[in-house]
Amino acid sequence: MPKISQRGIDMPQSPIRKLMPYAEEAKRKGIKVYHLNIGQPDIPTAPLMLEAVKSYVGRVVEYSHSAGNESYRKKLAQYYCKQGINVDYNDVLITTGGSEAINFAFLSTMDPGDEIIIPEPFYANYNSFASAVGVHVVPVTSSIQNGFSLPPVEEFEKVITARTRGIMLSNPNNPTGCLYSRDDLEELRRIVKKYDLYLYADEVYREFCYTGEKFFSVMELEGMEQNTILIDSVSKRYSACGVRIGAMVTRNKEVVNIAMRYAMARLSPPSFGQMAGEAAIDTPAEYFEVAYNEYLARRNFLVERLNKIKGVFCPLPKGAFYTIAHLPVDDAEKFATWLLKDFEYNNQTVMLAPAAGFYATPGLGKSEVRIAYVLNINDLTNAVECLKKALQEYPGTKVK
Amino acid sequence: MPKISQRGIDMPQSPIRKLMPYAEEAKRKGIKVYHLNIGQPDIPTAPLMLEAVKSYVGRVVEYSHSAGNESYRKKLAQYYCKQGINVDYNDVLITTGGSEAINFAFLSTMDPGDEIIIPEPFYANYNSFASAVGVHVVPVTSSIQNGFSLPPVEEFEKVITARTRGIMLSNPNNPTGCLYSRDDLEELRRIVKKYDLYLYADEVYREFCYTGEKFFSVMELEGMEQNTILIDSVSKRYSACGVRIGAMVTRNKEVVNIAMRYAMARLSPPSFGQMAGEAAIDTPAEYFEVAYNEYLARRNFLVERLNKIKGVFCPLPKGAFYTIAHLPVDDAEKFATWLLKDFEYNNQTVMLAPAAGFYATPGLGKSEVRIAYVLNINDLTNAVECLKKALQEYPGTKVK
Repeated sequence: MPKISQRGIDMPQSPIRKLMPYAEEAKRKGIKVYHLNIGQPDIPTAPLMLEAVKSYVGRVVEYSHSAGNESYRKKLAQYYCKQGINVDYNDVLITTGGSEAINFAFLSTMDPGDEIIIPEPFYANYNSFASAVGVHVVPVTSSIQNGFSLPPVEEFEKVITARTRGIMLSNPNNPTGCLYSRDDLEELRRIVKKYDLYLYADEVYREFCYTGEKFFSVMELEGMEQNTILIDSVSKRYSACGVRIGAMVTRNKEVVNIAMRYAMARLSPPSFGQMAGEAAIDTPAEYFEVAYNEYLARRNFLVERLNKIKGVFCPLPKGAFYTIAHLPVDDAEKFATWLLKDFEYNNQTVMLAPAAGFYATPGLGKSEVRIAYVLNINDLTNAVECLKKALQEYPGTKVK
Repeated sequence: MPKISQRGIDMPQSPIRKLMPYAEEAKRKGIKVYHLNIGQPDIPTAPLMLEAVKSYVGRVVEYSHSAGNESYRKKLAQYYCKQGINVDYNDVLITTGGSEAINFAFLSTMDPGDEIIIPEPFYANYNSFASAVGVHVVPVTSSIQNGFSLPPVEEFEKVITARTRGIMLSNPNNPTGCLYSRDDLEELRRIVKKYDLYLYADEVYREFCYTGEKFFSVMELEGMEQNTILIDSVSKRYSACGVRIGAMVTRNKEVVNIAMRYAMARLSPPSFGQMAGEAAIDTPAEYFEVAYNEYLARRNFLVERLNKIKGVFCPLPKGAFYTIAHLPVDDAEKFATWLLKDFEYNNQTVMLAPAAGFYATPGLGKSEVRIAYVLNINDLTNAVECLKKALQEYPGTKVK
């Protein structure tokens, strides 16, 4: 039997993978499972995307340019310019989802043994991508008490070493829903410049900010042209997760040049996805308004209801469509497992993402779960009701 | 200015990347460039694929299962069984092109510093994927004199070290067109088992074998269930390079389990591509017959014409749609550059892939080029005519 890679064995696992067989088992038993655990929106995909794919008239679905179709890159650059992100299409590399953009950014700027600082809790796959390329994630802890706001830059500075290559942010944040302000980013800019680091910003939830203010991108920070790398995706913006189209955007020509080597190795991003992505840019404002209002209503509803449950605390997220809630249990993973294995209320249950999987520091987040509000209010009502009943019934609940 | 990764700088570059600006410049001057350099077929994409995508009726293009849609995996497993490859759908992981299948296979089975043996010349991107994950490619040289047949296993055995994790084959071979026989593979099996290695086999050209015999897959080798990993793709079989759908197939459950961690990190393969891929399996035999006859005619035509040019030697490839030709020049890269920069015949020229880029050993293949016969016979006629004239005119040609 030949050996498995040690890197594969060491690779951090998805926080919900262990729960999946239980969810399947529950479904087999006829129980309705409300998936509060995943970021798969139920909002219709932007119709122009589907129309573009369906009206394809080509005969041969060919490889595209490895950086993506020029027409798409040009249009996407225009979109960014409208958002206040002044870039040229040569700064844009179309990728297979935001995932591949992260992979290219890491491969192009870091070597094995290098370190990247990320405020925790963070999107668990950052850890997966870092681990795949031999990079160590160094966490800086944010707290549920203040809504997971950005830790003071001093906390970042404390963990900077000779191997630190950059800082990664998800803004608006998955999994916390926190929105970093312009002031936050200006603060970070100081140390990014001081130590000549990269600032990787995953801004795939840009359209989902609930403060009424315009979203401020790291790409708008002055004097940071060589330092900022934007990770983007059409998945959430247009509710098109399955098309697998994203982008890596940076004005740092050297990074683009090196990333292109990786892009050429994998030949090209998906052609149908690119057609859809290019068409999506013309999506009218009404589409976003409907989605925005829907998410806003869900957020308000969910957070209010959660906070009414005894022992539950949930800060009001300002962006994205996630929130992290503190539950009155010692081990949210055990609770999430119990919900799927041993509980049902009116033949329904909920699946939660235990938040410990979003922390790099062992032991943190054990009483927290991430909840995605990607279900309609009717389903959310039932899901929260289930959760409430479950906390009443669960033997491990501390306050009832 | 923050640092670029050393791994990025060291990454081997595509053998044709340097030539691309010259090709674009030639086109701007109004010169018709025959692309003999790339494996982008002109054969129509299997019509069922386009129909499947166009008839999509879903509202939300969602993430699929990270291993790919179950319905597709089941159907693909049936397809393999019909080919004599007895696998279950749990042995199949749908990937974003064959490229991602290679990446997953390497990440799951090798650690940084490990070695993989590949007969050279080989598909240049194997080197790129190996380099990205810190794995060293150890070449075993095959020769144009005997049509690039598999080197004797003793040659493989000579370079096996404690760090050797596997042997990689492309069969039928890109870039040589060589087809490894069942006997070749049985020979390899002996050392693969002896040293408990992996045998990675890229069989994406399975349908393109011109010997009249049934293709024999490494997956048919007995007692190799834990050792063989198949890399597959719909790109060439159905002329659908742009859909970016491939598969990693192995009966080694541990490898599948670890590969799934990487698959989950990148969420899912493209949904539209999967729809197309699943539909493609019902493509009728006539589609392949037409494509096969076309490629066969092109191969015969091309190789005959090439061998008629003074100083050119080109073995008859038995599979895929490439051939490597020896040209009467000292440096095929210089010649290929000259063809694009300084030559035209009736306002036409050709783009070739210098073969040195397919060898890992420095200095080898300098007088060789890879030629893809993905153009129709009319275009091939013009392209070969161009090449002939060019060799007559080129100052560096040794025999005229």
